[in-house]
Amino acid sequence: MLGKKWVNCYSRNMENCIFCKIIAGEIPCTKVYEDDVSFAFLDINPINLGHTLLIPKDHHENLHEIPENLLSRLMPPLKKLANAIKESVRADGINIGQNNGSAAGQVVYHYHVHIIPRFSGDGLKHWPGKPYLLDEAAEIAEKIKSHLS
Amino acid sequence: MLGKKWVNCYSRNMENCIFCKIIAGEIPCTKVYEDDVSFAFLDINPINLGHTLLIPKDHHENLHEIPENLLSRLMPPLKKLANAIKESVRADGINIGQNNGSAAGQVVYHYHVHIIPRFSGDGLKHWPGKPYLLDEAAEIAEKIKSHLS
Repeated sequence: MLGKKWVNCYSRNMENCIFCKIIAGEIPCTKVYEDDVSFAFLDINPINLGHTLLIPKDHHENLHEIPENLLSRLMPPLKKLANAIKESVRADGINIGQNNGSAAGQVVYHYHVHIIPRFSGDGLKHWPGKPYLLDEAAEIAEKIKSHLS
Repeated sequence: MLGKKWVNCYSRNMENCIFCKIIAGEIPCTKVYEDDVSFAFLDINPINLGHTLLIPKDHHENLHEIPENLLSRLMPPLKKLANAIKESVRADGINIGQNNGSAAGQVVYHYHVHIIPRFSGDGLKHWPGKPYLLDEAAEIAEKIKSHLS
């Protein structure tokens, strides 16, 4: 028998989830907020100083898995944190980001929201967009609507 | 008297807000969803095909201004849309993004959430982070906590 062992920081199951271990106090973090359903701490590799992660205490992999009511309950702390971070680091703006799937840059498979303070001239570039061709938008909208019903 | 005139697409006031005009049907859009509090349509300059904007029908400039209960009510449609977009364009992942302030890339001053489908190898880069120096994290966390209370 191998015994219990640290297997993978980025595991998709709850038992080895680094964020579940942070909530449980088994891994240290710089905590900034906690309530009955949520927990927030500084990202250890901040994009800008004050970059914070807000997570639900319950383990859910991503936006597709997290229950709607829990998602809604994360919004009051998200707004409070965004206000507090903006004031405390005197940011000029705030980006909210939330990644689902490795193709979208998700690294830890416990739903988490990035709160990123921004400063005028900080040099971070946004992804470019380009217009739709002729009927492309209408066709895609129809497909999306068919998956909503 | 100059009469009523199109002044500024990106106005910060409700009267000249391009998203308020889209909701009112005064400016065309490719709509994908609507309920009593929210409205969603395709971004006209998509980062990837299917890139959708979810907005509240009520005009609020950003996360700092929008009431918590309305923010929470946007979460069920956000999850439904993310699921439907992922399926309809067969995306490998989904990014959720929400920008507050021009320094954070906000262009239209009506709160809106970007739902961006992602594809493996689509080449979009995420912003790099870097670790905190010695006591920097603890100092910033204390500042944030002082603004939360």
